[in-house]
Amino acid sequence: MDNFIYDIPTKVYFGENQLGHLGDELGRFGKRVLLVYGGGSIKKSGLYEQVVNEMKKSGLEIFELSGIAPNPRIDSVRQGVKLCKENKIDVLLAVGGGSTIDAAKFVAAGSCVDFDAWDFFSKSAPIKKTLPIVTILTLAATGSEMDDGGVISNPETREKIGLGAPPLRPKVSFLDPTLTYSVSRYQTACGAVDIMSHIMEVYFNTDESLYMLDCIAEGLLKTVIRYAPIALEKPDDYEARANLMWASSWALNGFLPGGRKHAMDWSCHPMEHELSAIYDITHGLGLAILTPRWMKYCLDETTLSRFVKFGTNVFGIDPESEPMEIAEKSIEMLSKFFFETLGLDDTFTKVGIKKEDFPLMEKRACGGDILVNGVKPLHQEDIEKIYEMCGEPFYPDFATP
Amino acid sequence: MDNFIYDIPTKVYFGENQLGHLGDELGRFGKRVLLVYGGGSIKKSGLYEQVVNEMKKSGLEIFELSGIAPNPRIDSVRQGVKLCKENKIDVLLAVGGGSTIDAAKFVAAGSCVDFDAWDFFSKSAPIKKTLPIVTILTLAATGSEMDDGGVISNPETREKIGLGAPPLRPKVSFLDPTLTYSVSRYQTACGAVDIMSHIMEVYFNTDESLYMLDCIAEGLLKTVIRYAPIALEKPDDYEARANLMWASSWALNGFLPGGRKHAMDWSCHPMEHELSAIYDITHGLGLAILTPRWMKYCLDETTLSRFVKFGTNVFGIDPESEPMEIAEKSIEMLSKFFFETLGLDDTFTKVGIKKEDFPLMEKRACGGDILVNGVKPLHQEDIEKIYEMCGEPFYPDFATP
Repeated sequence: MDNFIYDIPTKVYFGENQLGHLGDELGRFGKRVLLVYGGGSIKKSGLYEQVVNEMKKSGLEIFELSGIAPNPRIDSVRQGVKLCKENKIDVLLAVGGGSTIDAAKFVAAGSCVDFDAWDFFSKSAPIKKTLPIVTILTLAATGSEMDDGGVISNPETREKIGLGAPPLRPKVSFLDPTLTYSVSRYQTACGAVDIMSHIMEVYFNTDESLYMLDCIAEGLLKTVIRYAPIALEKPDDYEARANLMWASSWALNGFLPGGRKHAMDWSCHPMEHELSAIYDITHGLGLAILTPRWMKYCLDETTLSRFVKFGTNVFGIDPESEPMEIAEKSIEMLSKFFFETLGLDDTFTKVGIKKEDFPLMEKRACGGDILVNGVKPLHQEDIEKIYEMCGEPFYPDFATP
Repeated sequence: MDNFIYDIPTKVYFGENQLGHLGDELGRFGKRVLLVYGGGSIKKSGLYEQVVNEMKKSGLEIFELSGIAPNPRIDSVRQGVKLCKENKIDVLLAVGGGSTIDAAKFVAAGSCVDFDAWDFFSKSAPIKKTLPIVTILTLAATGSEMDDGGVISNPETREKIGLGAPPLRPKVSFLDPTLTYSVSRYQTACGAVDIMSHIMEVYFNTDESLYMLDCIAEGLLKTVIRYAPIALEKPDDYEARANLMWASSWALNGFLPGGRKHAMDWSCHPMEHELSAIYDITHGLGLAILTPRWMKYCLDETTLSRFVKFGTNVFGIDPESEPMEIAEKSIEMLSKFFFETLGLDDTFTKVGIKKEDFPLMEKRACGGDILVNGVKPLHQEDIEKIYEMCGEPFYPDFATP
């Protein structure tokens, strides 16, 4: 176990009707607020009006950056930086899902430097400071509301790059489960996969020294498996939405890795980012297709014990069974959960991802020569094989066309 | 599920050799530091010298409050307040276990008011502000290093009272598992019980709405059950000490209750505080004796499902057994863990607690007329019965005299 620093100061207002605190929390940082949001959904739902009223009540001055797209783009970030600089913005309020919050984070960072915000990604320019960020979350998935990272796409270069730095962590987040009642069946399913993937990327690790955090990871996974189907069937089930929302924050806020070696070296996310960089598909859908193949590919004698732990503690498979049988069954159960219970497409073919793009995606996923260093190190040729496995149905018996 | 605010900004340096950060962290708050510690153990171990050297290196001015006793007393707090006021202290550094940290917290609070610090306890005077608190933990038990409360005794009035308020939460804590290598077998055992009790007080709750937090509570309990025996056998097992230490912080830092109703209404702690107020016994020992009796007393049809969850998920009891059988077996397994595996005394008789003091203790435990409102509300007559159960061995077959 390596040493680590735990530092997650985000304050969270959890529950309904907490927006009465919004004005005070924003006001701690100044008077001039940049409100960042996506399409018109927060206007339709009435949330926009409510938020603006709260801010006006507290005498705050409001500026706006709207139209943040899913897989948010660097041009939105640049536009936001310009607004912040011209209007001497004190604090950002992001209202939306992970895309909106991620965009706001890099606007907040870009506003504190003199160079172009894409330099953070293309030239690894350090993020030392940001404007303070407050969020109101409307989708349980990315964990951006409590973490110190984000992902931005650049359509010109067909790149999608994730970055983390402590100043990016929101100061305050409002998590109201009722705001996710209107999230579609499909987006709820993709969000559930994203949450699970954040946990699994850390959990599939051969360093067993922080058993406590393994137990917590298993508990979070069981939570998503229990409540995602309930939220699909009954979108306004408060308990289901609340558990999914709080699990999404804890899946990725930095608590789970602890000091476990390689816990920050991920596999499926780098492989997936290349899909959505080129095809603009939903992140959680790409993860759902990739994850079971990646598991199958990584399962061997060196990783077996972790798969057994996963199968018995998360899916309740009988621990008396043969270890390899438990491991394979766990992959099958996860696939069934993604493709049957959540109803997501199960192959690249179905979502239109073409083989001709594999070489570029493979190369970028492992950063050129450098391998993806997760539970099992993956070189470019390994990633190629995993992408190829994604073409065909994984379990022909249950994945109907 | 009620709404809740999550706000746990304590920064933690976890692991060995992190004290190089101490000077910088203290320096953020000022130059004049009050070093608070207990007996001479930190001098014998060399920790005192190391800490003082780090502070001197950073040009800090050091003042001292030593001799903090287990079950820390209000006179130490008063002495500390005097030192802070006379020397215009900027920040407190508590080096020790929960007692030392608790004392430092109320010194930090008392230094910001004009009245006597006991008024916080006797007159519920509000704690609106404290001097900043930094801690170096040497015992995994109370969770004081990351929580917003503490307990102080007043030998004059034979009272021991716990209090919480957000400003009491430490700003920074250093958690080095190797500093707990020298903790005795007995104190390690008592610490393990204290950690488990903090979790169980919240977990034994009929509000099942935050399943995610139930899973996490179960994971923390399994962690203590796994590692406490290892730490008893091999006091310098890093993995065991690290898991116990991190579990102690998360058992009580305020994360586990979430918005579950009555999660802040505890049972065993109020009953135990009255024992140690009068007899000055180790808190964890008192909890070990009380907890299985309290469980037995509370087990009925209305609470059964929670006991079943506890037995199957924490102790791995076969879920196919009869529910009442699972529940009773879980209490037996917990008792065996406390009295056999950890080797703690199992009756009031053995630790010298006398029946003649029951009436006073009962009355105070429930605050006069007000009941203890945990998983099952307890009135004074219920507490009397639980105290009486503590006189005799709980399981005559395994609790040898």
